[in-house]
Amino acid sequence: MGVETFTVEPIGWVESPLIDRDQAPKQGDEGSPEAWLVFEERVREGLRDLGAGDDVIVLTWLDRARRDTLSVHPRGDLTRPREGVFSTRSPDRPNPVGLHRVRILAVEGTRMLVRDLEALDGTPIVDVKPVLDKDTER
Amino acid sequence: MGVETFTVEPIGWVESPLIDRDQAPKQGDEGSPEAWLVFEERVREGLRDLGAGDDVIVLTWLDRARRDTLSVHPRGDLTRPREGVFSTRSPDRPNPVGLHRVRILAVEGTRMLVRDLEALDGTPIVDVKPVLDKDTER
Repeated sequence: MGVETFTVEPIGWVESPLIDRDQAPKQGDEGSPEAWLVFEERVREGLRDLGAGDDVIVLTWLDRARRDTLSVHPRGDLTRPREGVFSTRSPDRPNPVGLHRVRILAVEGTRMLVRDLEALDGTPIVDVKPVLDKDTER
Repeated sequence: MGVETFTVEPIGWVESPLIDRDQAPKQGDEGSPEAWLVFEERVREGLRDLGAGDDVIVLTWLDRARRDTLSVHPRGDLTRPREGVFSTRSPDRPNPVGLHRVRILAVEGTRMLVRDLEALDGTPIVDVKPVLDKDTER
């Protein structure tokens, strides 16, 4: 019996000086350079209430990840025992969606400058959501 | 020129008493009943380090959402002006990925009982990630 699947159509792409997975920080607040979110013109209306100073959650599709990985050494440290991927933030996982909390520094049309984004250059953007109080208050 | 797309293969499904979108809470901590995450046998290895008491982020594919919606009245309140979807948590958005912070109450093989999940019965599960300190500390 076939399992239903769903299609992600990227709404934009990341422009970043990070081009090599081995050199990228593991998390956004570990030295990520500033990066641009470059959105498709067709989603402009959806962006209209986002502005400089907003903290948002960016979802990406980590297109260079392995999808057949179910356990990893956390943070790539071979001295640590393997863990199931769903209790890690490894990019390698069945559906490699990246979750990034970033701050918007500037907006220029459909381009947004952000900080704390560890995604590689060219990474597709899946979605952007506001940070809710519950993300920070409990 | 064609845009590259990506395929989400669900790793499981939600079992919940919530069956009607109009009756579902807008956020998980607004009265969601307990629900089960029912995972595919093929991802069992990825789950092995998750247990009761863990707080995790569950990503779902909101398969009953509209993907052609770019602005909404927040929380469906027609007295509030329309907002771009990327500054709301509306399920209606180009790539309808749901983001849910839940607590695991019990694990039975590849089934996990959770609280605070507002997803409807049958909603596909895309991914599970640990809550990181940075989600709560800044």
